Amino acid sequence: MIPKGGMFGKILRVNLTEKTFEVEEMSPEIVKNFIGGSLLGAKILYDDLKPGIDPLGEENELIYTTGPLTGTDVPCASRLCICTKSPLTGTVTASLSGGYFPAELKWTGYDAVVISGKAEKPTYIYIRDDKVTFHDATKYWGLHTLDTQLYLKEDLHDQNIRVSCIGPAGENLSLISGIFNEARAAGRKGIGAVAGSKNLKAVVIRGKKDIPIADKDAFSAGIREMMQCFKESPMAYPVFSKVGSSCAVEVTNALGVLPYKNWLNDEDIDWDEHLGPNPVAEYNITRNPCYKCPIACSQVRLVKSGKYAGIASEGPEYESLFSLGTLLNIKSPEFTIAADRLCDELGIDSISAGATTAFAMELYEKGIFTDTDGMELKFGKEKESLAFIRMLAHREGFAEIFADGTKRAAEKIGKGSEKYTLEVKGLELPAYDVRGLKAHGLNFATCYTGADHNKGYAFQEVFGIPIPHAVERLAIEGKGKLTKFNQDFAALFDIVTYCEFPAEIAVTHVFQRLMGDLISAATGLTYTEEDMWKMGERLNNITRLFNIREGFGRKDDTLPERIKTEPLKFGLSKGEVISQEDLDYMLDEYYKARGWDEDGVPSEEKLKELELI
Amino acid sequence: MIPKGGMFGKILRVNLTEKTFEVEEMSPEIVKNFIGGSLLGAKILYDDLKPGIDPLGEENELIYTTGPLTGTDVPCASRLCICTKSPLTGTVTASLSGGYFPAELKWTGYDAVVISGKAEKPTYIYIRDDKVTFHDATKYWGLHTLDTQLYLKEDLHDQNIRVSCIGPAGENLSLISGIFNEARAAGRKGIGAVAGSKNLKAVVIRGKKDIPIADKDAFSAGIREMMQCFKESPMAYPVFSKVGSSCAVEVTNALGVLPYKNWLNDEDIDWDEHLGPNPVAEYNITRNPCYKCPIACSQVRLVKSGKYAGIASEGPEYESLFSLGTLLNIKSPEFTIAADRLCDELGIDSISAGATTAFAMELYEKGIFTDTDGMELKFGKEKESLAFIRMLAHREGFAEIFADGTKRAAEKIGKGSEKYTLEVKGLELPAYDVRGLKAHGLNFATCYTGADHNKGYAFQEVFGIPIPHAVERLAIEGKGKLTKFNQDFAALFDIVTYCEFPAEIAVTHVFQRLMGDLISAATGLTYTEEDMWKMGERLNNITRLFNIREGFGRKDDTLPERIKTEPLKFGLSKGEVISQEDLDYMLDEYYKARGWDEDGVPSEEKLKELELI
Repeated sequence: MIPKGGMFGKILRVNLTEKTFEVEEMSPEIVKNFIGGSLLGAKILYDDLKPGIDPLGEENELIYTTGPLTGTDVPCASRLCICTKSPLTGTVTASLSGGYFPAELKWTGYDAVVISGKAEKPTYIYIRDDKVTFHDATKYWGLHTLDTQLYLKEDLHDQNIRVSCIGPAGENLSLISGIFNEARAAGRKGIGAVAGSKNLKAVVIRGKKDIPIADKDAFSAGIREMMQCFKESPMAYPVFSKVGSSCAVEVTNALGVLPYKNWLNDEDIDWDEHLGPNPVAEYNITRNPCYKCPIACSQVRLVKSGKYAGIASEGPEYESLFSLGTLLNIKSPEFTIAADRLCDELGIDSISAGATTAFAMELYEKGIFTDTDGMELKFGKEKESLAFIRMLAHREGFAEIFADGTKRAAEKIGKGSEKYTLEVKGLELPAYDVRGLKAHGLNFATCYTGADHNKGYAFQEVFGIPIPHAVERLAIEGKGKLTKFNQDFAALFDIVTYCEFPAEIAVTHVFQRLMGDLISAATGLTYTEEDMWKMGERLNNITRLFNIREGFGRKDDTLPERIKTEPLKFGLSKGEVISQEDLDYMLDEYYKARGWDEDGVPSEEKLKELELI
Repeated sequence: MIPKGGMFGKILRVNLTEKTFEVEEMSPEIVKNFIGGSLLGAKILYDDLKPGIDPLGEENELIYTTGPLTGTDVPCASRLCICTKSPLTGTVTASLSGGYFPAELKWTGYDAVVISGKAEKPTYIYIRDDKVTFHDATKYWGLHTLDTQLYLKEDLHDQNIRVSCIGPAGENLSLISGIFNEARAAGRKGIGAVAGSKNLKAVVIRGKKDIPIADKDAFSAGIREMMQCFKESPMAYPVFSKVGSSCAVEVTNALGVLPYKNWLNDEDIDWDEHLGPNPVAEYNITRNPCYKCPIACSQVRLVKSGKYAGIASEGPEYESLFSLGTLLNIKSPEFTIAADRLCDELGIDSISAGATTAFAMELYEKGIFTDTDGMELKFGKEKESLAFIRMLAHREGFAEIFADGTKRAAEKIGKGSEKYTLEVKGLELPAYDVRGLKAHGLNFATCYTGADHNKGYAFQEVFGIPIPHAVERLAIEGKGKLTKFNQDFAALFDIVTYCEFPAEIAVTHVFQRLMGDLISAATGLTYTEEDMWKMGERLNNITRLFNIREGFGRKDDTLPERIKTEPLKFGLSKGEVISQEDLDYMLDEYYKARGWDEDGVPSEEKLKELELI
């Protein structure tokens, strides 16, 4: 069980307290059952972390993983997975990003980098093939993410290094801060604060190791099949290549499930008029694809005139069009581009930053929180939104109370403000009004890391893709089984570290089998389609075990008050809620599909089946 | 007369209209008498341009030159000189910048690149060794300078290219826009607008040619001598390495010649209290030296807290501490860092942008121009200053009238506003109140490209360096001869493209001889100390011939009204002006020293001596 290619079978363990590192060989069991990405990370965390540790304490680990296809010629596999115990949700978590950093990380010769301990002062780690060195980063502390990358390149006299870093938000331990490489964000669940708590400003890498491929012919055949799927997909090149994820606006708006005004849904806004089907396509100036990606959904957008003229951003993605647009009742895509750039520079999660701003706006308008030093923090206010987000990242002034997201803010503010938070397990809801998308709702309620749209996305409900079968979005029946399917499906792309978009819109029908074929060809080992499905299920069970150990259970698999009690008032999902009763129905179905008991605890049988005990 | 090293003897001529290029061999006369930098540029412009052409017309040329030491191991010689007919001053001009671009440009194998014509649409040129290609830059049009460099690197999949580009200011033909490489500005005299008028967004380069050195031993000996001078200099390492040019604040403030509030000098402000001796040293985070520079005066500065937290800038230099600080009566070095960064991003000259803002503030306070759409454009206003500078670069709203600097604005506004402009030949005065620094005043009046402090800096008056002899700053006697010395001295570093700082503070006493030695060793030809002095003098004469041909004469060798008529009211230079009478006295002395007639026309004898006829 030693891989002949695809992986190096090596984990680099770095200790910031001691400034030491060691290289660990991956055991055959790890190679077979926990191959990479989120699953490898979850396994290490499950084994290493004592229950109840402080996510911002020295004992937490920050784990960078890639997958067996990362850095190879396989398209769309240059993905980085960062795993840790989330300080925002208290659960185990995995945040992913793309770009070139992931491929370069793999070329250093490690499949994972486990960072533990806490540096005495701001530090960056430099991994250059077999060399690992620790450097004072005091001078970079406070720098924006893009400038951090710029000046590290200048200082190291090497324009070819790749950098993963935090910005002011992570340094200030904001629980809605992320980790950034290039302008790519592993943005959610407060992982930036974990790096900040470790005084880790950046991980700098340069790798030159070749990745061997065990069976080159079979590997090429797999890549050809994938490229053929891309070609045949009605969405990959015709849509995603042109406008990226922003295409989703048209669909969710049409279905009446594009949330706005902090999910208030209290006026009938014609978002189609304000945004149109491709709200930011006219600002596209260039594409900035991840390594080896032929689809290149990532667009650089530039505002060419008006008050934001000259501001460019990689993005905004669909999610930012919501969090930095509709959610604030701001109708200017140009504002969204400017705010998206600001979030990237500050190193803050654009979804949670926007959601927290929207929440603060509702509190301000309702008179619950008005102590804003004169700032008129009302829906629709652009200048105030930008200023507030900046303050969040710096824990500045009155915004300090909001710097850790909506749940923490509501706990501190009280006065019933928790009714206006839209979060699950502390993680702010992404851009799908689950009142009209029941499987999305069940996924948000049960996902191991809170309301995460990337870990069980019901593409059937939004894009009408009939895999495994066609789905009625407003029905609650059958959503338990569907959500298990979607979460295990999604788990695999986080494990293989393959991109979610082609997985869901192009290779969907052959995904597990094709991944198995490619990984088998790369490693020279055998991974069947069934192994792949099992791998996904294994992730959703080991993470459940982790979370149960932390005290999580059925009580936490819930949805926000507003979702449960305030029906949508307009559009194609008018009248919809997910009541507690509906949720309970779906949870029962879901736990049953999972082989978990009614409290959501995995059965011994299931754990044995998954070789977790 | 074919150089065996140091130079390639090749000029690349690029025609944007035709999208063609050709390589021209430098003649023996050019090699001997016009070797490089500003002199080579001036010679080409003098030969190529018809008198009276529109600087923003197709007929103008934009010439990138380096010197015979650029890209070699000689410290402080990685300098780029950009020559053109200035649209701001109407004279021939040369703007210089440092960094890595100049060395890389040399490695492409050309000593100069002459860009003529006008591209049909936004274009960038890519020079990669012998390949020259033309590319559509429409998508980059509107991008800030730093983002332009970032995205060109991503798009070309080459992090090692070097980029020289314009920002929005140059695109919008602002006559106070510059050309930027890295965060280095060839900032003044509106050369950004010349690039903009040619639809030239960027020049992208990658060079790998070795520069041969004819006599390596002699070359090394010259470098050793230079390094020894650096070591012995009381200013190079002890001062410039630590705080860069910002050290000048202490001196000019002490002498009462640090201009403030648009040179009004109407209140006794204790700048020492507000700025201290090293106003921005506490913000230094890292040094970003030019290629092969051991002094590394260029500091990256970062604001770590407060309203500008997270903003970093390479700089501000002394000049920006004035133009984006004292001149606006803003006492916050943090504002200056933020404004300096903004100017770099917009691609606007920070001196003229600040001076234009200060001018607008005085007009606003005097009630001469108040049509500001409600903006309170008063001295001391930070937010308004940043907004106004942004508007300048975009020619936006009421700021449009100011977008071409103070002289053009006064011409449009009228109402006696020209009394409050501080410019010579259209170029805004840099940070030396010449009322208390007479040689500076004479230099500003006579410099071939307007009030340029880099082309005849009286280091004797500011730093007390007694070369060629000690100088009394308030005396007008002897300043004609001194200014000739300083201008011919300064000319040489623009020709050799050697950095002004070590020339003036470290190798001052051996400058011409050492440059001659090094260039002789590099080229295998003979350049004596006398040749070097002659080279400098030649520049100041050929540029004079160019300007005379354009209609310039004694009448244009003048100083602003305020300098001539409003005495300084406070400090060590209290009571001082440079009256027209004083100026005439100095001009007579200067012309005589130059061998020019009383109208400032070079004598035939002088021109023959300089081999210009």
